Amino acid sequence: MNKIARTKDLMIPKVTTGPLSASTKVYSAPEGHADIRVPLREIALSDGAGEGAGGRGFRVYDASGPYTDAGAAIDVEKGLPRLRGAWVRERGGVAEYEGRAVKPEDNGNATGRHLERDFPNKPRPLTGLPGKPVTQYEYARAGLVTKEMVYVAHRENLGRKAVLVRAKAVLADGESFGASIPEHITPEFVRQEIARGRAIIPANINHAELEPMIIGRNFLVKVNANIGNSAVTSSVEEEVEKMVWATRWGADTVMDLSTGRNIHTTREWILRNSPVPIGTVPIYQALEKCGGDPVKLTWELYRDTLIEQCEQGVDYFTIHAGVRLRYVPLTASRVTGIVSRGGSIMAKWCLAHHKESFLYERFEDICDIMRAYDVSFSLGDGLRPGSIADANDAAQFAELETLGELTKIAWSKGCQVMIEGPGHVPMHKIKINMDKQLATCGEAPFYTLGPLTTDIAPGYDHITSGIGAAMIGWFGTAMLCYVTPKEHLGLPDRDDVKTGVITYRIAAHAADLAKGHPAAQLRDDALSKARFEFRWEDQFNLSLDPDTARSMHDETLPKEAHKVAHFCSMCGPKFCSMEITQQVREYASKLNERQVEVDKATTVVDPEAGMAEMSQRFRDLGGQVYVDAEKVKAANKALG
Amino acid sequence: MNKIARTKDLMIPKVTTGPLSASTKVYSAPEGHADIRVPLREIALSDGAGEGAGGRGFRVYDASGPYTDAGAAIDVEKGLPRLRGAWVRERGGVAEYEGRAVKPEDNGNATGRHLERDFPNKPRPLTGLPGKPVTQYEYARAGLVTKEMVYVAHRENLGRKAVLVRAKAVLADGESFGASIPEHITPEFVRQEIARGRAIIPANINHAELEPMIIGRNFLVKVNANIGNSAVTSSVEEEVEKMVWATRWGADTVMDLSTGRNIHTTREWILRNSPVPIGTVPIYQALEKCGGDPVKLTWELYRDTLIEQCEQGVDYFTIHAGVRLRYVPLTASRVTGIVSRGGSIMAKWCLAHHKESFLYERFEDICDIMRAYDVSFSLGDGLRPGSIADANDAAQFAELETLGELTKIAWSKGCQVMIEGPGHVPMHKIKINMDKQLATCGEAPFYTLGPLTTDIAPGYDHITSGIGAAMIGWFGTAMLCYVTPKEHLGLPDRDDVKTGVITYRIAAHAADLAKGHPAAQLRDDALSKARFEFRWEDQFNLSLDPDTARSMHDETLPKEAHKVAHFCSMCGPKFCSMEITQQVREYASKLNERQVEVDKATTVVDPEAGMAEMSQRFRDLGGQVYVDAEKVKAANKALG
Repeated sequence: MNKIARTKDLMIPKVTTGPLSASTKVYSAPEGHADIRVPLREIALSDGAGEGAGGRGFRVYDASGPYTDAGAAIDVEKGLPRLRGAWVRERGGVAEYEGRAVKPEDNGNATGRHLERDFPNKPRPLTGLPGKPVTQYEYARAGLVTKEMVYVAHRENLGRKAVLVRAKAVLADGESFGASIPEHITPEFVRQEIARGRAIIPANINHAELEPMIIGRNFLVKVNANIGNSAVTSSVEEEVEKMVWATRWGADTVMDLSTGRNIHTTREWILRNSPVPIGTVPIYQALEKCGGDPVKLTWELYRDTLIEQCEQGVDYFTIHAGVRLRYVPLTASRVTGIVSRGGSIMAKWCLAHHKESFLYERFEDICDIMRAYDVSFSLGDGLRPGSIADANDAAQFAELETLGELTKIAWSKGCQVMIEGPGHVPMHKIKINMDKQLATCGEAPFYTLGPLTTDIAPGYDHITSGIGAAMIGWFGTAMLCYVTPKEHLGLPDRDDVKTGVITYRIAAHAADLAKGHPAAQLRDDALSKARFEFRWEDQFNLSLDPDTARSMHDETLPKEAHKVAHFCSMCGPKFCSMEITQQVREYASKLNERQVEVDKATTVVDPEAGMAEMSQRFRDLGGQVYVDAEKVKAANKALG
Repeated sequence: MNKIARTKDLMIPKVTTGPLSASTKVYSAPEGHADIRVPLREIALSDGAGEGAGGRGFRVYDASGPYTDAGAAIDVEKGLPRLRGAWVRERGGVAEYEGRAVKPEDNGNATGRHLERDFPNKPRPLTGLPGKPVTQYEYARAGLVTKEMVYVAHRENLGRKAVLVRAKAVLADGESFGASIPEHITPEFVRQEIARGRAIIPANINHAELEPMIIGRNFLVKVNANIGNSAVTSSVEEEVEKMVWATRWGADTVMDLSTGRNIHTTREWILRNSPVPIGTVPIYQALEKCGGDPVKLTWELYRDTLIEQCEQGVDYFTIHAGVRLRYVPLTASRVTGIVSRGGSIMAKWCLAHHKESFLYERFEDICDIMRAYDVSFSLGDGLRPGSIADANDAAQFAELETLGELTKIAWSKGCQVMIEGPGHVPMHKIKINMDKQLATCGEAPFYTLGPLTTDIAPGYDHITSGIGAAMIGWFGTAMLCYVTPKEHLGLPDRDDVKTGVITYRIAAHAADLAKGHPAAQLRDDALSKARFEFRWEDQFNLSLDPDTARSMHDETLPKEAHKVAHFCSMCGPKFCSMEITQQVREYASKLNERQVEVDKATTVVDPEAGMAEMSQRFRDLGGQVYVDAEKVKAANKALG
C-alpha cells in the first residue's frame, strides 16, 4: 500500500500497489521499437516445473499498469508518467491550448467541505487540427501504422510466440464463427482491422498515461469494469482505488459512471492515474448540470460536457443516439420498460418535447468533437432488454438498426466506433443478437453487458451474466462489460469489483479458448500440469486469483508441508487418483519400451514416435481386439 | 434450528429447519389421488403484486422436504415419515427380510470414541421377489403407472397450469435440440419416458422417506450436490446437516461420497432423514474395506458392499464399469491422466492384475442385485477429462461407447440407467459430448459434472463450470452435478455448498428457459415485474437466495423505508430509469386513448386490441414514416 500524508482535511487517494503473487512486471520491446515498452506479468514457477513456454517464467497479458511494478514509484498526486504524449506530438496535427475553464456545475456546484480537492498537476489539453489525421481510424485509413498499433500488436502476440517455440504442441481447434484470428499479429494486421472498422484502440490524445489496448473480434476478448460514485455513496479516493483495484485483477478498460457531486474532479484523478482506457456516459454529467431533470437537457449543455470530458482525456463515450422518439412507444408493453439510464433519460426528453433526440439530430456535430480528440464511440443500447421477457424485441432491434446507420456516419467522419449490447437474454437468443449486430453494424466491435441468462438470481448476477458473457464472447463480442454480485441491489464494494472482474476474465478466457485463440490454452495447460504434478504453489500462482485459491486450500490443509504433499484434502493421504495415473504412465511406458525392443529387432525405430503410437503397440502386445476404441478415435479426429 | 440434547458423548445431528423467506409449504394432490401429497413452496407476494399466476402466492418446485414445513415435527433420531413404504408394499412383489449384519469394516473398523452412534430406528430391508416387477422401469415396460409416476407428473406440472390460466401470456419459444417437452405432463407420459429409458425415478424400495423426482431430458433440469466426509475432515452430524442444507437451497439429489471411517453409519443417518434420492459410489467404501489398496479389491468384497448399500436404501450407484483394461493406456499421454477417483481405482486394479475390470465382467450380476431393490445405475465416466487439453479425447469417447453397450444390458435386466459425463470441456466441444451421449446411450439421461470451460480459475470453479453446465443443460443434459468454489482445493463447507447449489440452480433454470420449458419464464417474469414496480421484498423473496439479495441491498440502503422507495442505490433518489418508463407508459397510453377516440368516431373498436397495436397508432398520429421499426419487428417475429 502506498500511503501519502494527508494535506488539509482532504484525503489523498491510497492505492493498492505491489506485484501479484510470485509475479514480476517485465517489459518487452517490439522489434525495431526500442522506445516502446510493452508490459507483461511474469509468473515464477517452482523448480519442479521444468522448461515450459518461455522458460521458467510464465508470461501473461497485464493490464494493471505500473501499480504492480515493484520498481515503480507511485505518486497519485503526480499521476502516471505521460509517456504517450510524445507519440501524439511527434506525429503532428495537434495543438496545445488553454482549454475550457472548470465551472461550478461540473462538480455539481459542490462548495466548501463538499468540494473535493482538485488534481494538482493538470495538463493543458491538445486538440486535433482541421484537415490532419488525428484518430487511429484516420491513420489506419491513410495506411499509416501508429505507435499505438505497434504496441497493441506486440501486446496481443504474447502467448503466440510461446506456441511457436513449443513446436505447436498446443493447436487451436476452436470454432470462431467467421472471425479471422491470425497465428501472428503484425502492426499491419492491426492497421487493417482498424481501417475496416473491426477494431478500435480507445486512446484520447489527452490520455497520455494510457497503455494502449485493442478491442476487436480478432483479438483477445476484453473486459470492462464499471466504477463510479452515486448520489448516495462513495468518494474520490474510493473511486481511484476502485480503478486501480479493477485493473489489478484484469479489467482492460474502466467506465466511470459517477453521478452526483465532484464528477469532474473524480474523473481527473482517475484519468491522470489510469493506465487503461476510461469510458464515460456524458449524459450523466449533463443531467447533473440541469438538476437531474432530463427535460431541461439541451444540446448546448451536452456539447459543453463533451468538450469538458474530451479535454480531460476520456477515451470512449457511451452515446445513446439510437433512442429515437419513434422507438419509445415500442417499450410500453415491456415487462421492464427502459432500464438503461441513458436510454430512459433520452426517452423522457423525447417525450417531454415530442421531438427527435438531439443526440441523433446532432450526431455529425458529436462526431466532429470526438474526432478532434480521438474519443471512440460506444454507441449505447438505450433500449436494451431489462428482463428475459423483453429480450430481442422490436424496440431493441429497432435501435440496433439505427446504431448501424450511425456507425457508418461516424466512420465517414473519421471516428472509431464500438456498439453496446444487451442486457437480459436467454441462452437461445444470444447468438441472434451477435449475428444481427455483425450484419447491421458492419462488424464494428460489439461490447455487451452480460447478457444475464435469467432474472431469478439477484445477488448472483455475476454468474447469471457470466454464462451469457462467455457465450456471446465466443460468438464474437470483443469486450464484455462486467456485472457484479450487487447488480440490481446496490453499489459494488471492493470485493464485488474483484468478483466481477475475475468472473468476466473467466468468461473472456473461456471465449478465447472456444474461438481457437492460438495461445489461449497455454495457461490452462500450465496450470493443469502443475495441478497434476502436485505443484500447489504453481497452481495457485497461475490462477486468476492466487490469493483466493491459496486461502481456500489452506482452510482444509493449512500446513506448509501439505503444499508439497502428493495428496489433497479431497481424497486424503491414503489414496489419490492423480498419483495412480502416474503409475498408468509407467505401465504404458514399460509396454512401450518392450515394443521398442521388439521393433529394434525387426525394423527402424522412429525416435519421434512417442505416446501417440503407444496404445497401438499395447494392443499389438496384448493381442486383443480394440475395435471400439479405434472407431471412437477416428470419430474424434473427424470432429476436430 | 432444531436442537436435541446430547446423549452420551455423541452429538445428535442438528439440522436447519423452518421455511425460506416469506414461504409456506403447501401440498397438492393429483386428481384422483387423495393419498398423494406433492410438496410445493408458496412465496407470499405483497399487496401491490396484484393477481398473478395462482393468485397472490407464487408457487415453486420444492425439493427441501419437511424441513422447511413450519408444521412438521422434525426428529432426526426417528427419521422422516416412511410414507412411500406403503406404495411399495401395496403393489407387491417384495418381501421383508433380516438383511445383512453390519460388519466392523463397514465403518472402517472404527471403535470406541471413533465409532459414531448407530441410527436408532433402523428399518428391516425389503427385496424384490424373482419374476415380479420391482423397478420403475419394469412397471413402465409392463404398461403400469406407479404412484411414483403420478407423483412426479404432478410435481413437474406445477407452473404449466399457471401458464394455462394466464391464457398463454408466456409462450415458450426455446430451442430444445430435439427434446419432446410436452405442454402438460401426464402420468402416462412419465411412464412412456421411463419405458423408453429416457427418464428415471431413482427410488430404492428401501428409501421409503423419499419424495419421488424424475430425471430426464423432457423434464425440468435437475441439480445434484455432493457431500461426504473424507479421511481428513468431517463428522456424521455435519454430513446430515449438509444434506438438509443442500436440499434447502435446491439440490434435487445428493451424493454421499464419504471415505474413511463411519461410512455405513453416516449413510444410514443421511438416508433415514433424506427426502431426496441419495447416490453413492460403492467402490469408495469397498476400497476402505481393503485398507485403501485398489489392488486388493475383489468382486466378492464389492458385491457385499452393493448389497449393504441396497439394503440401506441408496437410490443410485455410480459404477465405473466402462473403464476397461484396453482403454487405460489411452490416458497415458494426457495432461492430467485419470482424475476420476473411481476411474483411477479401477485402472490401477486392471493394470495390477492385467485383467479386465470385474465391474465390466460382472456387469450382469450387478444388474441383478440393483434390480432387486430398484437402485438406478449412474454409469460413471471414469476416464472423464480433467483438463481442457484432455477434453473429447480417445479415452473419454472409448469409455462412452462402452457405457452405451452397458446401458442396453442394464435395460434388458430391468434396471433404470443414467450416464455420467465430463468434466473439463471448452465451450466449442460441449455439444459434441451431448450429441454423442444421446446417440451412443439410446437417450438415457445424461448427468454431467460441470463441465468446466477453463482450468485457470481454481477458487471460482462453480463459475467456470456453471457456464458449461448451463450450456450442456440446454443441449439436453438431464441432471447437473454441482461444483463448489473449493473444487480442486479442499472440501466444501456450508457456504460453499450453498454457493454451489445456487449456481447450479441458475444453470438449470437458464437451461430450462433456453429449452423452452412451458413454465420456466413465469418466475423470471414475476421477479422482473416486482423489480420494475419497486416491490423490493417481492424481488428478494422470488429470488433463488432471498437472504443474500436482501442483505446486499441493505448494505447500501439499510433503512426500512428504502425497501418501499421508488429508487435504488444505483441511481439515487433524484433519477430513476424505471420511474421514467412508467411515464413512457402513460404517454403511450394517452396516445392510445386519443386513437381510441378517433376510432370511436370512425370504426368499431376491438377491446382486445391493446398495447400491441399502440405503436402503429402512435405512428399514425405522429404522421411519421416507421420503416425501420416495422422491418425489425417483422424480422424479430421471423426469428422468434
